[in-house]
Amino acid sequence: MKTDGLIKFARKAADKLPSGNISWFPPSQWLTGYSKDTLSSDMVAALIVTIMLIPQSLAYALLAGLPPQVGLYASILPLFAYAMFGTSRTLAVGPVAVVSLLTASTIGAIAEQGSAQYLEAAILLAFISGLFLLALGIFKLGFLANFLSHPVITGFINAAALIIATSQLKHILGIKVSGRGFYDLVTSIFSKLGDTNIITLLLGLGAAGFLVWARKHMKTALIARGASPMLANIVSKAGPLIAVFITVLLSAVFGLDQYGVRIVGKIPAGLPSLTLPSYNPDLWFSLIGPAILISIIGFMESISVAQTLAAKRRQRIVPDQELIGLGAANVVSSISGSYPVTGGFSRSVVNFDAGAETPAAGAFTAIGIAIAALLLTPLLYYLPVATLAAIIIVAVVSLIDFSTMGQTWRYSRADFFAMLATIIVTLLFGVENGVMTGVALSISIHLFNTSRPHVAIVGNVPGTEHFRNIHRHDVRTSPKVLSLRVDESLYFANARFLEDYIYDQVAKRPKLEHVILMCPAVNSIDASAFESIEEINRRLKDSGVKFSMSEIKGPVMDRLKRTEFFHHLTGKVYLSHYQAIREIDPDCLK
Amino acid sequence: MKTDGLIKFARKAADKLPSGNISWFPPSQWLTGYSKDTLSSDMVAALIVTIMLIPQSLAYALLAGLPPQVGLYASILPLFAYAMFGTSRTLAVGPVAVVSLLTASTIGAIAEQGSAQYLEAAILLAFISGLFLLALGIFKLGFLANFLSHPVITGFINAAALIIATSQLKHILGIKVSGRGFYDLVTSIFSKLGDTNIITLLLGLGAAGFLVWARKHMKTALIARGASPMLANIVSKAGPLIAVFITVLLSAVFGLDQYGVRIVGKIPAGLPSLTLPSYNPDLWFSLIGPAILISIIGFMESISVAQTLAAKRRQRIVPDQELIGLGAANVVSSISGSYPVTGGFSRSVVNFDAGAETPAAGAFTAIGIAIAALLLTPLLYYLPVATLAAIIIVAVVSLIDFSTMGQTWRYSRADFFAMLATIIVTLLFGVENGVMTGVALSISIHLFNTSRPHVAIVGNVPGTEHFRNIHRHDVRTSPKVLSLRVDESLYFANARFLEDYIYDQVAKRPKLEHVILMCPAVNSIDASAFESIEEINRRLKDSGVKFSMSEIKGPVMDRLKRTEFFHHLTGKVYLSHYQAIREIDPDCLK
Repeated sequence: MKTDGLIKFARKAADKLPSGNISWFPPSQWLTGYSKDTLSSDMVAALIVTIMLIPQSLAYALLAGLPPQVGLYASILPLFAYAMFGTSRTLAVGPVAVVSLLTASTIGAIAEQGSAQYLEAAILLAFISGLFLLALGIFKLGFLANFLSHPVITGFINAAALIIATSQLKHILGIKVSGRGFYDLVTSIFSKLGDTNIITLLLGLGAAGFLVWARKHMKTALIARGASPMLANIVSKAGPLIAVFITVLLSAVFGLDQYGVRIVGKIPAGLPSLTLPSYNPDLWFSLIGPAILISIIGFMESISVAQTLAAKRRQRIVPDQELIGLGAANVVSSISGSYPVTGGFSRSVVNFDAGAETPAAGAFTAIGIAIAALLLTPLLYYLPVATLAAIIIVAVVSLIDFSTMGQTWRYSRADFFAMLATIIVTLLFGVENGVMTGVALSISIHLFNTSRPHVAIVGNVPGTEHFRNIHRHDVRTSPKVLSLRVDESLYFANARFLEDYIYDQVAKRPKLEHVILMCPAVNSIDASAFESIEEINRRLKDSGVKFSMSEIKGPVMDRLKRTEFFHHLTGKVYLSHYQAIREIDPDCLK
Repeated sequence: MKTDGLIKFARKAADKLPSGNISWFPPSQWLTGYSKDTLSSDMVAALIVTIMLIPQSLAYALLAGLPPQVGLYASILPLFAYAMFGTSRTLAVGPVAVVSLLTASTIGAIAEQGSAQYLEAAILLAFISGLFLLALGIFKLGFLANFLSHPVITGFINAAALIIATSQLKHILGIKVSGRGFYDLVTSIFSKLGDTNIITLLLGLGAAGFLVWARKHMKTALIARGASPMLANIVSKAGPLIAVFITVLLSAVFGLDQYGVRIVGKIPAGLPSLTLPSYNPDLWFSLIGPAILISIIGFMESISVAQTLAAKRRQRIVPDQELIGLGAANVVSSISGSYPVTGGFSRSVVNFDAGAETPAAGAFTAIGIAIAALLLTPLLYYLPVATLAAIIIVAVVSLIDFSTMGQTWRYSRADFFAMLATIIVTLLFGVENGVMTGVALSISIHLFNTSRPHVAIVGNVPGTEHFRNIHRHDVRTSPKVLSLRVDESLYFANARFLEDYIYDQVAKRPKLEHVILMCPAVNSIDASAFESIEEINRRLKDSGVKFSMSEIKGPVMDRLKRTEFFHHLTGKVYLSHYQAIREIDPDCLK
């Protein structure tokens, strides 16, 4: 009964949203015009993304604390699901860094890494996250994601990138560290620096150096040496794959695992087998909160890149349909034995730049990864973990964004404060607490800012029907009448401010007979503010002052009419403020 | 360092508030004009309030789970403190029902009723509550109390009154019940109904019936029998005292305690001795949350009645000074060995009606209670607890307010829902959870309502410089230009809505070259909304559309100028929308 009411409420609310229509088969929009040219563009893009995604999948699985093949599984069926239900033509779905970190931090608190329970929890996390995204999409509740303000997201991503990079340092150094929090991690790394494995460190630094160079200079270097731009583009995206190839070769030829270099080891070849997620109620219960957080953060990352890319071609993204696409991708990821996925930023940009025209490119990428999972895994036995760590570090360091921080500092100190608090709390007390703190601060700042609406005492501009602020214009006023204009919608946090303001002004004016509240900027009055208005009317009556209102907007008026208010009102309601003054104190207008 | 920043932030914020100046010695405002007439008015009022307050003090101490004399102590020194630091001329400070319930529910969870720890915790609760109120007053943070919306307060008071009345039923029935929650209480009472002590029940019902009659009819009855209105007024306020007197007499003469009637027993005579509150850090820590809640709820009750009474005489209440007055009263209550106090509703109305003119009336009341504490306590030995329970029940039942609930239902379903949730959660999960739920819901409802601002596509009204909604007016538009007016300040919860709206409109209009955002109703743009505006500019640029803005308000403009935004802006900023259209597409105006 209660749930029914909630759903009705949500649906009714959803109907008011302009988020476009949800379609159950979005491919109909692009399949009809699909040509041979589109096919070849999509296939080239898919090839480039596949080359990029193979090492990333392995690396992000490592970051999530999962076996490497799980990363590959996350890059096969979920891509088909998104191609079927998403609206972005070029979004590249799969494992991403921040969601992998969130997975690790969630599951790490529940199960031991490497255990069957750990994988079980990761699979269930993807499932719940998928259901939640689907629910948001179906009930058109995507706007809820807006409560993560920009400063909170920026702060969170910066902190997460720092945590991710730090968490991978142990693999570059070849040391074992304990401790789950960021602070524990850093102190543990420092205390174990003496255990550093030099060969691992050289491999890791070499890989990282090569990746940075490849990212910045390889394309120009190749073109300078006469490669075609097309080839140069493909090869430059293969930086991580080349790093993997070279380090596997070094590791295998010199038997580096004999010298303490940690290698990936046996990866089971083959495609994922389909399973149903756990129905352990305790596990469900403990994963619901984190799943919601992962869903929302993943959705924000995904929708942001999808909209950026869509705008470049004047295509349309339907946010609620995106929720369904990502929800389906996550449910499918779970059923194929993998963990939460979302649309990745850099990978989608590569897909777009490489010429992807339709979501079919994603499906082709999935086929590429499936082939890799079938054929390449034996070759990865000797892959040093340090190489994957280098890939992760180079990827996430680019997420750290000081320029937005600086801009926020200049633009709004309060918002900067919310950002900083998000960073600090995320680093010290974990990602969930960081995000919660940020959201709470954003809301508090907003409420604080709107809790003191601008109220102007107004007077008549001689010779016109206009009323303006007495402090800014040369206007006429009457000692009998106090005309106030309030420049904000009235709600619980600012209603008493208005009350206090009015009582204060009335106490100062012994000759006062009328207060007229001018409401052209009041878009709504909630129940608390309505009580305040009634209270103002009642108390002014006790003081022998009549209370009137002018220029009330239509929807506000409709609502007030549902109550007894106009029977109690000591004054009147006027369509225009000029009318009010002409009736109450015409002398003042002469 | 961090705290410093916070304090500076708070002070800066406080400076923007209009809450009047805080004075360190408010009595200077009324002491100068103090005359013999004022003195006699104040003394008559003090007499009436004292008569009312003696039984109330004992009863509310019972409700709070404290020995009866503690209620008297709460009605002596705190009244002097408020008279020194408060701004209301007629507020009657002392123990009140809702704060007593909150005290009982807070301390009941920590210590056993009747133990030394229980009293120690109650004393510390008053101390922390006093410090918190003082801090709010000094830093002018009284506006924080506004976040308790009207529906939440109404819901909370209704639920609290129900809990209080139910909690006293055991004293009327003369049974012992266990269980702390409302549900446990009700089931426990039902299961023990068979143990009812008939004499106690008769006493309790008799007292309650008499009190209801006295409240409604005694004054008219006395006047009808020839009493002077003045005397009738005093005697009618003495209803509870008369009930106490008669039941003490019955109880003492017939030795009712021999028949199982619970009596108050020995009350130590004398004035409170001064003590310092506990400095047990664990106790401090566990009481801070409840102390904040008690302070805010007490403040809301107090300021509401203070303002109502002040308005009747066009006097001024300074909310921040009230915080200091109540804070001082609580600190003093603690030091004199008692529990949290605030301004009581019915007692203040009585004080006002009885003709109190200055806070000196409160000081005289305190003297009256001090005399009672010295002389009357031995007489109260035989006082049946059932009499006090009847006094409490009759007092709180009048707090239950169905008419406001009905009005809220008619006015706003969402606000009614918040109220209902507050009531249900308060009854089922206790007062703190109830209030928290209500506050969270109020904030969510507000954010939800403002997360979809009204955006209108506007066109030129022919022959004028005005631009109006294309759906409501016969206006001219250009296929090259999209003119949008947004009717709300932009912040994180609605910024993406605007983004989505614009991308949607642009995707629909292949010929579009310009988007102009008209901002006459945008009072502020927070950092998130600013990022959205930048993003809109960037993405429209990618789509080959120029983005301009018009009619930006001064403060918003100042803030935008602090950033690089105007360097990136693809279009221009126009003072008026008419100017914009005249420059971009003058043909459309012809």
